[in-house]
Amino acid sequence: MKRHTKIDKLPTVRRLPGYLSILQKLSATGEMFVSSSKLAEKMGIIPILVRKDIELIQVSGTPRIGYPIKLLIERIENYLGWGASLDAVLIGAGQLGSSILANRELNTLGLRIAAGFDNDSRKMKTSVHGVPIYDSARLEELLKTMHIGLAILCVPAVYAQNVTDILVASGVKGIWNFTSARLSVPEDVITQKEDLTPGYAVLSAKLTRLQTSACR
Amino acid sequence: MKRHTKIDKLPTVRRLPGYLSILQKLSATGEMFVSSSKLAEKMGIIPILVRKDIELIQVSGTPRIGYPIKLLIERIENYLGWGASLDAVLIGAGQLGSSILANRELNTLGLRIAAGFDNDSRKMKTSVHGVPIYDSARLEELLKTMHIGLAILCVPAVYAQNVTDILVASGVKGIWNFTSARLSVPEDVITQKEDLTPGYAVLSAKLTRLQTSACR
Repeated sequence: MKRHTKIDKLPTVRRLPGYLSILQKLSATGEMFVSSSKLAEKMGIIPILVRKDIELIQVSGTPRIGYPIKLLIERIENYLGWGASLDAVLIGAGQLGSSILANRELNTLGLRIAAGFDNDSRKMKTSVHGVPIYDSARLEELLKTMHIGLAILCVPAVYAQNVTDILVASGVKGIWNFTSARLSVPEDVITQKEDLTPGYAVLSAKLTRLQTSACR
Repeated sequence: MKRHTKIDKLPTVRRLPGYLSILQKLSATGEMFVSSSKLAEKMGIIPILVRKDIELIQVSGTPRIGYPIKLLIERIENYLGWGASLDAVLIGAGQLGSSILANRELNTLGLRIAAGFDNDSRKMKTSVHGVPIYDSARLEELLKTMHIGLAILCVPAVYAQNVTDILVASGVKGIWNFTSARLSVPEDVITQKEDLTPGYAVLSAKLTRLQTSACR
């Protein structure tokens, strides 16, 4: 099962939302075609990388004309499954969870957060950014009545595996992990770990090199 | 100037914090050496990739013994400049900004957020997670009195370039961009854009493939 869900071109897949955003803006201004050099400039990468990225979604360009914008958009959305909407629950409606509930960009990409769960009694029976918040104790019960494709995990790290076990037992196949915990899941469950340290590492490495070159 | 701050092995640099966290835990249990296969298992990647990653920080392993853990930690911290602390300001103390102020992990990596700025009068003169919040109108004035290496940008996208121009004019050399705006900066200023869509794209692509393989 695992081999079907392995993504080989991870950096390319990570860049697809960036392309999509640029292409949608170009399309809105009435443009029909775009060159790899224009895409490269807007993405801040080199043209050869753009051409390699576009190989993944199998669109051919025409010399001196470029790539057809509408087809690029269609293929990216198909590749990512962003044509249909994805129903999700969010567990842990603290600072981080609330900022995800407030994120409209994910909404425009088809993510629909149907419910939030928290064990803080002040938050239960309220709604945060339009999403109703339920008692975490009711997670298992309520998941049975919902058709949920994705769980967004924003609980403190110590609870992460425990909540994950409940999610997996309830048939949830995708877990977006915003905790610092590394989760154990069966082979047919997909997890994606999100944290700020990789971006902070890149930034730190660049700042360190900038200082070094300034001191030369 | 730009060529000195170009990072070639971006995926490797993004993985360094993961290695660091694993190595620190191993070191705390008294381990002295670690094999690439053990690191690979804990990172969830293949051993050859671990060996390539370690080439970047120039540590040699010994056959059947492994890599010296303390040296790996030292080299990673040096590479990322995480030995010294980095003073930062945060602009925009809304939901997202507050969740970053609440993030203790960045703190343990040397990031010290000295001040926050917001244009909401209810937030000024308060402190959020121990960080004092000032009026955004005072940004330029207060930056002159501080030695700030990094600005964390969490304002609405429409204000992003405007605030960036103030930061650049005040001599800030690093901007961590949490807005959806693409920023224009001079060549000697480093920006790192952070958003949830690349991770969401990877997750969506994997979920789409999982469904496809389940339907076969």
